[in-house]
Amino acid sequence: MNFLEERIVKDGIVKEGNVLKVDSFLNHQMDIKLLNQMGAEFKKRFADKNINKILTIEASGIGIACIVAEHFDVPVVFAKKSQSINLDGEMYVAEVESFTHKCKNNVIVSQKFLSEDDHVLIIDDFLANGCALQGLIQIVQSSGATVEGIGIAIEKGFQSGGRIIRNLGFQLESLAIVDGMDASTGQIFFREQNAEN
Amino acid sequence: MNFLEERIVKDGIVKEGNVLKVDSFLNHQMDIKLLNQMGAEFKKRFADKNINKILTIEASGIGIACIVAEHFDVPVVFAKKSQSINLDGEMYVAEVESFTHKCKNNVIVSQKFLSEDDHVLIIDDFLANGCALQGLIQIVQSSGATVEGIGIAIEKGFQSGGRIIRNLGFQLESLAIVDGMDASTGQIFFREQNAEN
Repeated sequence: MNFLEERIVKDGIVKEGNVLKVDSFLNHQMDIKLLNQMGAEFKKRFADKNINKILTIEASGIGIACIVAEHFDVPVVFAKKSQSINLDGEMYVAEVESFTHKCKNNVIVSQKFLSEDDHVLIIDDFLANGCALQGLIQIVQSSGATVEGIGIAIEKGFQSGGRIIRNLGFQLESLAIVDGMDASTGQIFFREQNAEN
Repeated sequence: MNFLEERIVKDGIVKEGNVLKVDSFLNHQMDIKLLNQMGAEFKKRFADKNINKILTIEASGIGIACIVAEHFDVPVVFAKKSQSINLDGEMYVAEVESFTHKCKNNVIVSQKFLSEDDHVLIIDDFLANGCALQGLIQIVQSSGATVEGIGIAIEKGFQSGGRIIRNLGFQLESLAIVDGMDASTGQIFFREQNAEN
């Protein structure tokens, strides 16, 4: 197990309905030392990529993205989520449908902050069905920028988002891929990955 | 002028209606080096305080809080904003009224992450009328924890939030206090502060 898998086993809580609560260290309270370890690991996994910007989405992606950005020495742009568009200036907007919440949301980034010169690493805390991520990819592509890679903390491997994104040819690196959970025992089953950490 | 005031003059945009846009470096695109300078400055200003946790509020406070947290070597908790309460577990909830948006919002923190043992530094990007900040203070006090200080990037000194919070006896440190703006010339007038930086 790597450092993140170990932490998930130690402090994650499995709930009925394939819910994994990691709010004590990742997405409500945030362990900054852990985020730094994640930053170092992403830097290793994307070592051959020339990345000049990190893109994430509010809210829980922002903290991770900012700490990861220190390892790449680049700025962060965070996309806003909104059900209606009410930002001034020219915006890239992707309409994404949420499977979980059964509603449509707009993912929005100001055109000032993404252009064809940008080489983007997308960072987020969770990947399940991948709706938000598909919106972010769509936005990067609308701007003419390049998606150099996607770094995710925890992927729910039993949902389709990861497979779809990899099938599209993106380098998607998830530090922990959960292939199954058992709410009655609290057990979490991780997919084996090759990374030696 | 300090480093943040200089950056605001360089890259901030004054709009009609006392709007100051700093989205190119602070709250849409984020300059991580600048956030690190802010972290170092807050560490200096709160040097005599024994801080073990940083509290902020989604979304634009999170990035600043995480980088500032590295300077204090403490975890971050971010409060969630919601018009309805739909989080499981026991929550601290403060209902705050927004002057700008003319609506009521709940500021929510899980009870697991704040207790009477905590000495909290509250961090946010903007302070104007101070509604969100009042909600955060209310939550810290509900938990029995102590507000050791409040660190703000940009305070709109011509609105009442800062005065109210200081009148209540809190150590409120705003790295830049804007006392006025002129949309026709783009000029920004800062309050003079004693800090030698």
